Amino acid sequence: MTVKKSKDFDAWYNDIVERADLCDKRYPIKGMNVWRPYGWEVSLLIDALIREELKKTCHKEVCFPLLIPEKLFKKEADHIKGFDAQVYWVTHAGDNELEERLLLRPTSETAIYSMYHLWIRSHADLPLKTFQIVNTFRYETKMTKAFLRVREIHFFESHTCHRDFEDAERQIQEDLDIAKDFFKNLCLPYLLNKRPEWDKFAGAFYSIGIDVILPSKRVIQLGSIHQYKENFSRPFEITYEDEEGKHRYCHQTTYGMSERLLGATISIHGDDKGISLPPMIAPIQIIIIPIIFKGKEDRVQKKCHEVYDTIQDNGWRVHLDDRDITPGMKYYDWELKGVPLRVEIGPRDIEKKMVTVVRRDGKKIGVQEESILEGIEREMTDYSETLMKQAQSFTKDMIHRSETLMKGIEGIIEVPWCGNETCGLEMEEELDMKTLGTPIPPVECTGTCLRCGKKATTWVRLAHTY
Amino acid sequence: MTVKKSKDFDAWYNDIVERADLCDKRYPIKGMNVWRPYGWEVSLLIDALIREELKKTCHKEVCFPLLIPEKLFKKEADHIKGFDAQVYWVTHAGDNELEERLLLRPTSETAIYSMYHLWIRSHADLPLKTFQIVNTFRYETKMTKAFLRVREIHFFESHTCHRDFEDAERQIQEDLDIAKDFFKNLCLPYLLNKRPEWDKFAGAFYSIGIDVILPSKRVIQLGSIHQYKENFSRPFEITYEDEEGKHRYCHQTTYGMSERLLGATISIHGDDKGISLPPMIAPIQIIIIPIIFKGKEDRVQKKCHEVYDTIQDNGWRVHLDDRDITPGMKYYDWELKGVPLRVEIGPRDIEKKMVTVVRRDGKKIGVQEESILEGIEREMTDYSETLMKQAQSFTKDMIHRSETLMKGIEGIIEVPWCGNETCGLEMEEELDMKTLGTPIPPVECTGTCLRCGKKATTWVRLAHTY
Repeated sequence: MTVKKSKDFDAWYNDIVERADLCDKRYPIKGMNVWRPYGWEVSLLIDALIREELKKTCHKEVCFPLLIPEKLFKKEADHIKGFDAQVYWVTHAGDNELEERLLLRPTSETAIYSMYHLWIRSHADLPLKTFQIVNTFRYETKMTKAFLRVREIHFFESHTCHRDFEDAERQIQEDLDIAKDFFKNLCLPYLLNKRPEWDKFAGAFYSIGIDVILPSKRVIQLGSIHQYKENFSRPFEITYEDEEGKHRYCHQTTYGMSERLLGATISIHGDDKGISLPPMIAPIQIIIIPIIFKGKEDRVQKKCHEVYDTIQDNGWRVHLDDRDITPGMKYYDWELKGVPLRVEIGPRDIEKKMVTVVRRDGKKIGVQEESILEGIEREMTDYSETLMKQAQSFTKDMIHRSETLMKGIEGIIEVPWCGNETCGLEMEEELDMKTLGTPIPPVECTGTCLRCGKKATTWVRLAHTY
Repeated sequence: MTVKKSKDFDAWYNDIVERADLCDKRYPIKGMNVWRPYGWEVSLLIDALIREELKKTCHKEVCFPLLIPEKLFKKEADHIKGFDAQVYWVTHAGDNELEERLLLRPTSETAIYSMYHLWIRSHADLPLKTFQIVNTFRYETKMTKAFLRVREIHFFESHTCHRDFEDAERQIQEDLDIAKDFFKNLCLPYLLNKRPEWDKFAGAFYSIGIDVILPSKRVIQLGSIHQYKENFSRPFEITYEDEEGKHRYCHQTTYGMSERLLGATISIHGDDKGISLPPMIAPIQIIIIPIIFKGKEDRVQKKCHEVYDTIQDNGWRVHLDDRDITPGMKYYDWELKGVPLRVEIGPRDIEKKMVTVVRRDGKKIGVQEESILEGIEREMTDYSETLMKQAQSFTKDMIHRSETLMKGIEGIIEVPWCGNETCGLEMEEELDMKTLGTPIPPVECTGTCLRCGKKATTWVRLAHTY
């Protein structure tokens, strides 16, 4: 008996990540899972899309050491306060106690900025835009969950330096454009929320969360963008000489998204049959299945190989499943693993010079063999759009704008707010929800703050979160 | 004043890795360096070639956690003895002391085999072939050196399970074939040495070293292949049920190569002008440089862009350097960075419908513009072959077969040996060299052991090593 997503999302999720061969949670450290080949392939495809976006916008890829000396990490006071409870400490090497403790990066600001201090000399070195795709470590005390809350986290982090606040702000606009491009690949809608002061990133001037709503009706942050202003460049002495020979502090930003991208994609698009992968991140985009009846195998096999070649030559990731089991068992396997399109070829299809294309969402289409590439292209596009529309529709239904503090709302509540921290925290307490922040771009609000009754300056979003 | 390779190889190497923009050694932990964008690009190209080889031979890519619980690591007694002095220990997380210490992987046998124990059930699950490309950590006490001896090491490790010793031996043959294919990309000759008993990998039944000789005339191991027999499958209980329903232990092998590949490539091919990258791992394979004289800029720029498009459309990694500095300064930069081919285009070239192609090794050829792609193809191949031949010739000169224990030999000495450990260790001491091991494939030896005078069973190689 397998668990149904429609009945119990959490149980379904915990089950499906292993049954779809994405990860193995039995590794003997809680919250540190093994990426199985299929899951890791998806992850590498996501990395490749991120890399493409970041290279297109002239970010340079680097790789910094994992370990950070304690003193370096403690240079920015707020930053260390924010991460103090979450870091893993290396204290010994071999039989020796280290002179200085080293920590496993929970994020790389302090590692990278000690080098930026050396790399940046003049205005000609700016903007400096780098990123890395690495694993990061956080000692989570909450319940762990594959991809969504783990202690070794696969992620990218970009770090940029600019001559002034305005140029850093332009970077943040570029980051938002990257998100817009990138999330299409995952067929995922997202919300941009400017986090309230009391929940911004440790050391940030302000933080933007990239949030999605999962079927549990709870919100999860998939990524974040931070404006640091001079908060790090001052303690790390990252300065440049401007055209007039004056030394100035750089303004800095960061941008990061993690393997939660995969967790959210699985959560949102999956169904009772398994996961559903958007074509852009599917290791196998098309699975060919021979429908074989006794005595006619050769003709079907031959046709399957022909069609395989045609599809592969056109650049699709395609696989021919010629295992000696029934077609039904194959359907089951590949639906579980979320392959977007299935091509079935049997004797009757061959006679009619057709193939049968079945989408992961169940839509079944007969396609003329001679126009198979057009058919695949069309269905792949339409399937992607369908995934996106479904997710958008769910997200839209989950946002509830309200002029009263309605309790018991599932999803996100948007209420008028004066912007005052005390009012915000009181609303959080009353609703037993967390503040996501204010929408980006800002949405005009003419109401009055639901706590103090003063004129509202903005809508504010609250939700149950991960 | 820059350091000359011909004068002082070590100083040249330490200097060139930073000047060619490969890494930055100023990170505040000894032996943990920062991969700069150019170096990391080369490293990713090497990874891609490894990945291609391993996928072609049906290895599946996985990613295992970095941290290993102490108990798990200590399951195989020899293994832990071999690494005890080299591991970094995580003892605390946040403010808590961990109940069990965790170590940063120095290699992943113990992490992976705890899961193989769960993954393998039947003969149908075999062979199981996986690999990962990750960073590994070893607390080196010797002097560190960029890429060649570091404490955070970028590497791949493949781990395979087989039904019996013979199938594991076939895997090792496949590993040797992969090396043969792969090293062509780096234009590097290498020696295969079966390590003596006293220097095999911790836990191995036997070990093969993939060795190269650097210009320092010292030998460095770039990779290794290990036959484990049942040495790990017994403590980790990796068993399978055979066709008769009997439970048997798997036979296992591993294969690994590290960022030393890059270090050796730089060491061997570089010259006083900088590094020389083999085309397959060059981030920029062709650099186009406009030779501009006053007043004729437009025509040259236009032609450069045309040629750029032609070359890029053909799949080469090409860059057009249109910085506002002299051509000579550009030559200097790209020679330093080891770009294989330079294409110069000036007004006289345009008049003659020619371009000038200059190889990193100095060869200069005029090529008709209409046959530029053929010219590039030809010179790129010839340049690769030239690099390989030079390196082969150097390696050959460095191997000295001798029937006496000649002291003071530079490079490798090959002497007859009875195979006895005492004799081997005595020769090491007398020559003040390390035993590399016996050649693979074995080379017939008819002499007598230089220590005990008994009939030699094999040649044995000794050298100064890193």
